[in-house]
Amino acid sequence: MINNGYYTHEFHGDYELVGVGALDLEEGGSIPDCRLAVATFGELSEAKDNAILITSWYSGTHQIWRDAYVGAGHALDPERYFIVAVDQIGSGLSTSPHNADGANAPLTMSKFPRVRIGDDVVAQERLLREHFGIEQLQLVVGGSMGAQQTYEWAVRFPDKVLRAAPIAGTAKNTPHDFLIAEYCRESIMSDPGWNGGEYQSNEDAEAGLKRQAHVWALTGFSSEFWKQEVWRALEFDSKEAFVEGFLEPYFTAMDPNDLLTQAWKWQRGDVSRHTDGDLAAALGRITAKTFVMPIDEDVLFPPRDCEPEQRLIKNSELRVVEDIAGHLGLFSLTPTFMTQIDRHLGELLATSN
Amino acid sequence: MINNGYYTHEFHGDYELVGVGALDLEEGGSIPDCRLAVATFGELSEAKDNAILITSWYSGTHQIWRDAYVGAGHALDPERYFIVAVDQIGSGLSTSPHNADGANAPLTMSKFPRVRIGDDVVAQERLLREHFGIEQLQLVVGGSMGAQQTYEWAVRFPDKVLRAAPIAGTAKNTPHDFLIAEYCRESIMSDPGWNGGEYQSNEDAEAGLKRQAHVWALTGFSSEFWKQEVWRALEFDSKEAFVEGFLEPYFTAMDPNDLLTQAWKWQRGDVSRHTDGDLAAALGRITAKTFVMPIDEDVLFPPRDCEPEQRLIKNSELRVVEDIAGHLGLFSLTPTFMTQIDRHLGELLATSN
Repeated sequence: MINNGYYTHEFHGDYELVGVGALDLEEGGSIPDCRLAVATFGELSEAKDNAILITSWYSGTHQIWRDAYVGAGHALDPERYFIVAVDQIGSGLSTSPHNADGANAPLTMSKFPRVRIGDDVVAQERLLREHFGIEQLQLVVGGSMGAQQTYEWAVRFPDKVLRAAPIAGTAKNTPHDFLIAEYCRESIMSDPGWNGGEYQSNEDAEAGLKRQAHVWALTGFSSEFWKQEVWRALEFDSKEAFVEGFLEPYFTAMDPNDLLTQAWKWQRGDVSRHTDGDLAAALGRITAKTFVMPIDEDVLFPPRDCEPEQRLIKNSELRVVEDIAGHLGLFSLTPTFMTQIDRHLGELLATSN
Repeated sequence: MINNGYYTHEFHGDYELVGVGALDLEEGGSIPDCRLAVATFGELSEAKDNAILITSWYSGTHQIWRDAYVGAGHALDPERYFIVAVDQIGSGLSTSPHNADGANAPLTMSKFPRVRIGDDVVAQERLLREHFGIEQLQLVVGGSMGAQQTYEWAVRFPDKVLRAAPIAGTAKNTPHDFLIAEYCRESIMSDPGWNGGEYQSNEDAEAGLKRQAHVWALTGFSSEFWKQEVWRALEFDSKEAFVEGFLEPYFTAMDPNDLLTQAWKWQRGDVSRHTDGDLAAALGRITAKTFVMPIDEDVLFPPRDCEPEQRLIKNSELRVVEDIAGHLGLFSLTPTFMTQIDRHLGELLATSN
């Protein structure tokens, strides 16, 4: 294990580390002492029937949800709901390669096992049930890899998910996304400083982390984002300054092995693992009222990848979010993003499912 | 200079190296003995009025045009036209970093100067006039960086270009394309074996060349190409086998510095350099009958980047080519690509301009 100041309360505010015990993994092996970083907002009702679960995306944590998505005036309103944001395994806050210590010490760094979306969802379900006593969720919502977890929840625990909102993500990862994640991984692993996962500091692989940031420059934003110079509204003077001042520092602060754990997991997100590869059968299990919410300019998860999945979900609607930024519009970069999210999530929460 | 067996007649068939003398460059300096690789097809008429010029794209040469685009039954028919395919400076066949010798020896490897699209077009015009006696072209046609040269021809020498067909490219490079080319460059330059451009063999930078190939995997094809597994028709068993068997060997055979010269040039293609940045004024100079031919699934040069340019050209039409492969559909990967190219070019050549 190594110390990395980014994965602290200083940068991520209030959250609690909650142990869910030993977690057996789909790929084999187990995490002896699986701990999940959990941030909550609002109060759980006595009937424990007002809970919402937020799942985290690649490189992300509860922090962006707390800052942009949750609060008074938002659909995700802590005055009405008990909102539980859980950071994924490998996120750097929950059990991850760089922080594996104590009983998890045998899993540190390059020895960390492969984790799947299903492992996260099993751990989250246990957390909600055992730690909070929550048996049913008003809503599961997440973006990107968080959408993968959302789909997994709705397929694996249909009785527990009343509503689902997968944003900018797919139930079955596409080959193009697999390749994008593969070259994120390659960017990091090709840095000699990564050293097979046995570095002393994330700074040892800074060059690789920067190259990984550049994969996101190419795919995370739409070409229109660059052409229309949307970065100007974010107070940068040039596209180069935006890459160097926004994308690069965002990723160079992070742990290389943690990102690799997430990327491997992202590549293999696929709810049809429950049904021998039959995606229609898997999505047919969903009983949640589901709003499938792709972003129109998303290169990674374009509407044409999301709509065919939506059509396989009985009680669903396609709600396309218009955002020039593309996938990383998830960071609420434009003034019109969150109003759409709030409208769709508000309408979803108002349904009687 | 270093030897690279890829840039030989064995791999590129018949071509002639034609000297055009000293070429002063827009960025300063000059190439003392600029040589252009030229492949011709058909016979020049006595009136020298049946010539077509083909320009080359990034990493490409006359070879792909000879194999896929030119021949009996194609619009580019050597029975009717004298077709001159000229490989760009930095292509590895024409004067390039890796082959700079003789009078060009001071420009070898890392000392090669920066070359712009305009430099190529000036050299090509001189070649056609001095070597062949050609003063006017029935058509200039090229894809991608070849489209940049096509636009440059039509703006710089409007009286010499009767018809123009820029395929899958833009008159003014977009910021997204700039970034894609930038990360192609970074992929190569981040390989320690590149050694600041002073390697002994292209194999020294093989890892970087492979990473550069992967940038093309992410952007050169559409996501639908991957989802629909179009590579199966190219007789590969998996997307990984396709990347390893098609994209990687294509690029690892090439010279790193040559690719860098081309990428730098690509980044800065912009006909509005002639008109103080006024793109409408530059494109307004074009008198050629012009078919602007984007590929519908092209990530690099999507129709929405090409159509606004087309609308600025007086005597022009937008002819969108439908191809699931995206940009690298230029390699004629699908059975329907070339029939569209031939139809559009045939109709263009039939116009009376």
